[in-house]
Amino acid sequence: MIRIGQILLGRRLANREQAERKIGPLEAVPAMGLDGLGSSAYGPEAALAVLAAVGAAGTDSIGWVMAPILALLAVLFVSYWQTIAAYPSNGGAYAVARENLGTDAGLLAAAALMIDYVLNVAVGISAGVAALVSALPALHPYTLPLCLGILGFVTLMNLRGTLDAGRVVAVPTYLFLAAFGLILAIGAWRTLASGGQPEPLVAPPAQPQVAQAVTLWLLLRAFASGCTAMTGVEAVSNGMGAFRDPVVRNGHRTLAAIVAILGVLLAVISWLVHAYGIGAMDQARDGYRSVLSQLASAVVGRGVLYYVAIGALLAVLALSANTSFVGFPRLCRMVAADGFLPKPFAVAGRRLVFSVGIGYLAVTAGLLLVVFGGITEHLIPLFAIGAFLTFTISQAGMVMHWLRRRREGERVGLKLAINGLGACATGVALAVITVAKFADGAWITLLVIPAVIVLLKAIRRYYVRLDLKVHDPTPLALKPAQPPLVLVAIEEWNQLADHAITLALTLSPHVLGVHLADLAGPDEGYDRKLQERWERNVAAPARAAGFPAPRLVVLQAQYRAIHAPVLQLVRELELQHPDRSVAVLVPELVKERWYQKLLHTHRAQRLRHALLKHGGTRLTVVSVPWYLEAMPLADAPKEAVEKEGAGAAVV
Amino acid sequence: MIRIGQILLGRRLANREQAERKIGPLEAVPAMGLDGLGSSAYGPEAALAVLAAVGAAGTDSIGWVMAPILALLAVLFVSYWQTIAAYPSNGGAYAVARENLGTDAGLLAAAALMIDYVLNVAVGISAGVAALVSALPALHPYTLPLCLGILGFVTLMNLRGTLDAGRVVAVPTYLFLAAFGLILAIGAWRTLASGGQPEPLVAPPAQPQVAQAVTLWLLLRAFASGCTAMTGVEAVSNGMGAFRDPVVRNGHRTLAAIVAILGVLLAVISWLVHAYGIGAMDQARDGYRSVLSQLASAVVGRGVLYYVAIGALLAVLALSANTSFVGFPRLCRMVAADGFLPKPFAVAGRRLVFSVGIGYLAVTAGLLLVVFGGITEHLIPLFAIGAFLTFTISQAGMVMHWLRRRREGERVGLKLAINGLGACATGVALAVITVAKFADGAWITLLVIPAVIVLLKAIRRYYVRLDLKVHDPTPLALKPAQPPLVLVAIEEWNQLADHAITLALTLSPHVLGVHLADLAGPDEGYDRKLQERWERNVAAPARAAGFPAPRLVVLQAQYRAIHAPVLQLVRELELQHPDRSVAVLVPELVKERWYQKLLHTHRAQRLRHALLKHGGTRLTVVSVPWYLEAMPLADAPKEAVEKEGAGAAVV
Repeated sequence: MIRIGQILLGRRLANREQAERKIGPLEAVPAMGLDGLGSSAYGPEAALAVLAAVGAAGTDSIGWVMAPILALLAVLFVSYWQTIAAYPSNGGAYAVARENLGTDAGLLAAAALMIDYVLNVAVGISAGVAALVSALPALHPYTLPLCLGILGFVTLMNLRGTLDAGRVVAVPTYLFLAAFGLILAIGAWRTLASGGQPEPLVAPPAQPQVAQAVTLWLLLRAFASGCTAMTGVEAVSNGMGAFRDPVVRNGHRTLAAIVAILGVLLAVISWLVHAYGIGAMDQARDGYRSVLSQLASAVVGRGVLYYVAIGALLAVLALSANTSFVGFPRLCRMVAADGFLPKPFAVAGRRLVFSVGIGYLAVTAGLLLVVFGGITEHLIPLFAIGAFLTFTISQAGMVMHWLRRRREGERVGLKLAINGLGACATGVALAVITVAKFADGAWITLLVIPAVIVLLKAIRRYYVRLDLKVHDPTPLALKPAQPPLVLVAIEEWNQLADHAITLALTLSPHVLGVHLADLAGPDEGYDRKLQERWERNVAAPARAAGFPAPRLVVLQAQYRAIHAPVLQLVRELELQHPDRSVAVLVPELVKERWYQKLLHTHRAQRLRHALLKHGGTRLTVVSVPWYLEAMPLADAPKEAVEKEGAGAAVV
Repeated sequence: MIRIGQILLGRRLANREQAERKIGPLEAVPAMGLDGLGSSAYGPEAALAVLAAVGAAGTDSIGWVMAPILALLAVLFVSYWQTIAAYPSNGGAYAVARENLGTDAGLLAAAALMIDYVLNVAVGISAGVAALVSALPALHPYTLPLCLGILGFVTLMNLRGTLDAGRVVAVPTYLFLAAFGLILAIGAWRTLASGGQPEPLVAPPAQPQVAQAVTLWLLLRAFASGCTAMTGVEAVSNGMGAFRDPVVRNGHRTLAAIVAILGVLLAVISWLVHAYGIGAMDQARDGYRSVLSQLASAVVGRGVLYYVAIGALLAVLALSANTSFVGFPRLCRMVAADGFLPKPFAVAGRRLVFSVGIGYLAVTAGLLLVVFGGITEHLIPLFAIGAFLTFTISQAGMVMHWLRRRREGERVGLKLAINGLGACATGVALAVITVAKFADGAWITLLVIPAVIVLLKAIRRYYVRLDLKVHDPTPLALKPAQPPLVLVAIEEWNQLADHAITLALTLSPHVLGVHLADLAGPDEGYDRKLQERWERNVAAPARAAGFPAPRLVVLQAQYRAIHAPVLQLVRELELQHPDRSVAVLVPELVKERWYQKLLHTHRAQRLRHALLKHGGTRLTVVSVPWYLEAMPLADAPKEAVEKEGAGAAVV
């Protein structure tokens, strides 16, 4: 087990190595930006798919759709730039909203983001696999295994750490940027050189002339669909915890790089699509080719560059889930630290990432993939809502933030205006998306979000109640107390029993041996020899050494339930001695090998578990370990010594 | 969970109810006899299948094959009659052989029997389902689910207890006996009335005339195949533990009933098969009908009686696995009591049967069924060997038993002769079967048996070694000992910590608080407040009450492995105080609800587990429970109180 973990995940990291595990822009652009950069592929495609209803006229109006999207992107960029500066440790819509708009708004943002992240993993991977399968139809029967394989790979990479994952996904990301950068540059140059009428090397399919006119509603719907290009922009603010110092500058650089690249890609793609007359094709029809595939073959033909570019695109799409794996665990960590998620989400794992969050994300997305058989296009309408809800709440939170600063006397005019504009713009976009996509499934998101919020609040209520119950404002109230009554569970007279009784006599002068008869069933027969041995081996030497002689009590276990008779005895003792506690010593043979677990009945563990569960606060259970192999002092936990080294010095 | 167990398995039984759970002949004949009675169906069929090589001449020589089989059955009957009387508590080949022939012979018998029982479950169920499926071909795609369903049903019945299982299988058993008894009686009457030439109502298919002559080798092979009719006869001697008093008389009656019915069935079937000219058909061909089906329709046509009889036969075949479920767990119990199997096999479960053995049998047979897809005819040659090996060893053991008695002066002439004859006869049969079936797969059994014996001996060696290591012949060596050094693991200052420290001060004056910093990761930040709180809430009041003030030690857990720094501290303390033990108090919040398990990090359990595993014998771990819900004394374990009642009185 240890070796497998070692190979798959790498060695366990120390807290002091945290700083070396942080990332800079070079790793962060792929690690956090894959989702956003991949959006350049399906944002224009989604908009064009809506516009295809009016045929060639649709492609001509792409500019009317893309211009507001690019404007919105610019607003988002500036807004998030400010958010990062204002909340450098844990930006993200949750923190911003919780501080400025109150807990409910924070939870709304958190719930929307969590759903968004889970959906992004499932949708991203299945979109990548769908593209791969349409390129290589022989792989079609393996859609689901491919999806799960990629999910497993991304999960494993992120369990190794954000740094490792960022380095791995950097390869396809930078390949994608280089290849498409080259293609788009060539296309732009040809378009300019030809005065806006470039000759395609491979002509895209002709678009039908449709009599229908372009309406405002059509443009709005195209805008709503195209907005998916913007999801992923919030990832940097959620992942601020991953950056090395200087945190804000690294965050700003990463955000700027991602948004600049995405903006250029979107702008150039829209322009070239218009110049080359490319429209979206019907995915359900045979011979379907994506917009980027049509564009690339129109610009550079079907050469090596084309295949490299398309291959890198597939990898980017399939790995775009990585963005979620960077953001989700850190978001959950913040939410868990506030008590709205279980505490384990806030515990750093072997490699200093929040393994529980990563595991939860992988399992949930995996279930979605399995349930939908690896084909998740029906989920796409569900997830733009989450992103824009987050954008809006986050901007609104920043508006409140600046308003408060202004009340404190600061001059915040421009900053307030930018975030105000951002809030309005993303709010309008959210409304448009909600209306346009409501019937397609967006209503599910609107149902699930409140359910998640209710769950988060219930978790928090549990912790608050727990805290009230264990809260202890008062100092110790000590009074001279008597030592506990000590029961020693005896299965037979052996070294375990000897050791436990010797120990018991150091804890208290009141020691009672307890033997349970007939635990294995009625045929076992009661061991009368034990009583004689007790007298000879325990009582007599104890008397000789000046201790009060411990008695042996034999209990019948009619139902072979080991704890019930012991608990009854404990209760009787507690009634007789209301001022004393009872300790039950359970000798336990420590199983050092896996096969030993098969060969023993585990009565010690079961007794301990049952006594703790039902015993009450006046009972304590003392586990007295015994080892088959001698365990000398210096030998103890070698692993631990090597691991902790000087770090465990007493402070 | 409790309610599901209640519904499926019935209430938990007390040891004192053991006597009422025993069975008499009426339940034992179906419970133990199903395997033997079902043999009447496939024994003659198997012999006739070999004889079919010579066509009609084969059926004519069935008498030459069946006569020695019936004679052998008679010898076995008398031998086992004597075995039961001599070993009334745990007859069975294992006990007989171990006592009279030594451990190795006992283990040989045990291994052969165990394999035999597992194979019988798989083969019996799949044979029943195969017969059902050939009657209702629409069920064919559900062969494996049907097999596993029947296996689950039989397992559940036997987990409820042998009594319950016996009552359930009694219905098809007695129906089978009544229906076939009637059919065979009618057939016998018609045959006698017609002077040996009865007119079939439905004519069996004509048998081909083959030029080949009947050879001795053919007869021997038919005998070897027909011997499968005898498996199941040993079941009574293995299941003696299930009988109510008078044990021997009940065992004798059950054995007599099973053998008498089986003998009559075999004899009459062979005679009528000969009279009606019925031969075995090729199972691989379409239109296959079993010998008993041909016989029944020849005697009474295809009326209600025919279908009732065939239906009951199917049920008997499918449920013949029950015999294994009676014998296997009891055999394993004996073997485990001697230390050759893990101890849990010897522990009576909820319903006073040996649940681990039942579960193991079900899982192993289920795996066989799954691996072979519910079609296990290839396994049939494997399992006659086990039965006859057992017979032979058991008889040989009885021979040694009588020889010893004779040395003690007893007159044992006839008894010795009978068991001697039995040993020789079954030994010859074993040799014939081994040679005849060797190539068909019997060699696998001959390989697996030694492997099982090696495993059994390895298990025993483990227990012997364990016993030597924990063995303690000497009385307590007590010297005046100092109380242990007590460490209290403190997560934060709350009621759990308060309670644990209060308790610690009753155990020893030397108390040290231990806090682990940075357990959740490097960002947690070290809680300096704890040190102040400790001084105010612990040290000051302890001094005021006259106790030595406990110190607080803060350890860094660089690797977030909770136990390593604590173990290092323990080791340092042990070196400083070579004459004292160390107790670590771990306050533990008891999780009373399932969802609480999701909401906590389980540090207490993990710390306890790691400390026990690596701590060494000078360390003890004291679990100090705390409950969110107040747990008043009288409230403690309601379930336990109801369950144990007066049974837990102190003896």
